[in-house]
Amino acid sequence: MSVDIDHRPVILTGDRTTGPLHLGHYVGSLKNRVALQHSHRQYLLLADTQALTDNASDPAKVRRNVLEVALDYLAVGIDPVQTTICVQSGLPALAELTLLYLNFVTVARLERNPTIKDEIQARGFGRDIPAGFLCYPAAQAADITGFKANVVPVGEDQAPLIEQTNEIVRRLNRQVGRDVLPEARALIPSVGRLPGVDGKAKMSKSQGNAIALSATPDEIRDAVRRMYTDPNHLRASDPGTVEGNVVFTYLDAFDEDRAAVEELKARYRQGGLGDASVKRRLDDVLQSLLAPIRERRAALERDPGYVLDLLRAGTSAARERTQATLDEVRAGLGLFTFEEAGFAAPR
Amino acid sequence: MSVDIDHRPVILTGDRTTGPLHLGHYVGSLKNRVALQHSHRQYLLLADTQALTDNASDPAKVRRNVLEVALDYLAVGIDPVQTTICVQSGLPALAELTLLYLNFVTVARLERNPTIKDEIQARGFGRDIPAGFLCYPAAQAADITGFKANVVPVGEDQAPLIEQTNEIVRRLNRQVGRDVLPEARALIPSVGRLPGVDGKAKMSKSQGNAIALSATPDEIRDAVRRMYTDPNHLRASDPGTVEGNVVFTYLDAFDEDRAAVEELKARYRQGGLGDASVKRRLDDVLQSLLAPIRERRAALERDPGYVLDLLRAGTSAARERTQATLDEVRAGLGLFTFEEAGFAAPR
Repeated sequence: MSVDIDHRPVILTGDRTTGPLHLGHYVGSLKNRVALQHSHRQYLLLADTQALTDNASDPAKVRRNVLEVALDYLAVGIDPVQTTICVQSGLPALAELTLLYLNFVTVARLERNPTIKDEIQARGFGRDIPAGFLCYPAAQAADITGFKANVVPVGEDQAPLIEQTNEIVRRLNRQVGRDVLPEARALIPSVGRLPGVDGKAKMSKSQGNAIALSATPDEIRDAVRRMYTDPNHLRASDPGTVEGNVVFTYLDAFDEDRAAVEELKARYRQGGLGDASVKRRLDDVLQSLLAPIRERRAALERDPGYVLDLLRAGTSAARERTQATLDEVRAGLGLFTFEEAGFAAPR
Repeated sequence: MSVDIDHRPVILTGDRTTGPLHLGHYVGSLKNRVALQHSHRQYLLLADTQALTDNASDPAKVRRNVLEVALDYLAVGIDPVQTTICVQSGLPALAELTLLYLNFVTVARLERNPTIKDEIQARGFGRDIPAGFLCYPAAQAADITGFKANVVPVGEDQAPLIEQTNEIVRRLNRQVGRDVLPEARALIPSVGRLPGVDGKAKMSKSQGNAIALSATPDEIRDAVRRMYTDPNHLRASDPGTVEGNVVFTYLDAFDEDRAAVEELKARYRQGGLGDASVKRRLDDVLQSLLAPIRERRAALERDPGYVLDLLRAGTSAARERTQATLDEVRAGLGLFTFEEAGFAAPR
């Protein structure tokens, strides 16, 4: 048993377990998490319960990807000693906090949440929104506060969810009469979102425009070959456009030799540099980025017992932490406990 | 560890812990429960979590009444050996089942539920419905199915909630591919609802028209004195009306000497029987009904440790049962478990 002398800010983040992670996740979050795990007390949530809120008809996919995402975490350099990786469905206190928080938020407020509105539209739910989906901001509030997270890295479009969490926190603290829960701060990444290889704004496995972290050398090569460039750049000698050209966007994101990239851009704009040459460079960059990740992933995959043990240990530590928060919240609200129960008043 | 050889149908019922129980509960449910506990495997849920869905601003009331309602159960003759009395908030598996079920019901369906519609109106929520309140049919489905209840005694107005539960059960069973959960049958009491002492349709503590099971002799006497009769029956010699006359309704409900009651009714209709005489009889009847209940309640109140131990034991048994159901449902859906997790496919 260790005394808690860790004063680092607490970060909570994670992923819905609906598919293996890809380069978009790497740029948008994984890279940051690897860096933040030293300066922060970091918890990574394998959000299988949340994944079910819009995948109830395919629970097998949700289950399968718990381990896939865990493998991705470990492969990119998440250190299980620094970071606690845990499975959401293994944390019953989060379900209890969610139900409690649902009493501190109105249906109208959930419906007004811009993230939820957008996602309802994106998923084509129409009027048939699963109730679990409408309620997931309360579940997310439970995740964040269950760990007493101070910092939550989110995309810009997810910022309203943190505001929603803090509203619940304030209502609850007001009810309790003191700050039993901390408010959380959204950490919005400075880098933009990585587009899909087809040039669409969002890389996503379901759109078929993603490069998985576990992609084979051939898959990488093929994706780069198919990559969207400047449609008007027909001959190498033509001047080309760099803006919106996915190959250059990726070079900006992954090539560490900034000077070389700027030089390539200048030559491309001027004319005289073919797409094939730029793509060759990007292929080299991505192959060297992903080779060690793929190798670590393959090694871990040969030892599922080790990965499971890590998840078991992480989930067990997380269970203790989230249960402690639930106990505090319940005590703060003055809810029933077997320990301090007493009769209302002497008669 | 005992082998389950109990083939009696399983009954789940209970009360929101928002106030001590009264004569309306006695007639409408408690009396039945005392009878049913021999022929059924009965679970009584002290529904503190559900009570919070419309009492989030007064958690102390909800807490206080957990023990009050438990006292009422024991005082009227619920036998803790025959019946398992348990505290809802002590059963995390129910919260987990609730979140799961919310994925199998749409927001539109919850909003269409006639019971919810009526209750939203009755509580004056307007547009500011707490999300927990809208979702409580899913929580109730979790309660019912968590215990694998076959029979659920409910008022006629609550029957749509059982239908809602069975819809979730069918959707879930279809998803699993076999009947992992049983459907439940509503048991609607044959006796009508006991009116308040003021003649209003519903007896309720908040309306101030209730006689608590713990009422003192003076409180009973006073309530009977105030009781609504026939407003046109001004003198004893006048003919009076028995229908809608609360004193006669109560005599019908509580006086076991049917012949005597019929004779009184005839005399009252004819004229020549004063309200005071009928009320005297009702007072006698209620005093003898409530005296032993009040005494048992007072004795139990002097031994809160005993009551708490009963609740602890009941909740612990219920926790095991509901956790087993959750495990079965999760396994049926093929959700993640640490025990059987494996990688998706060999690569």
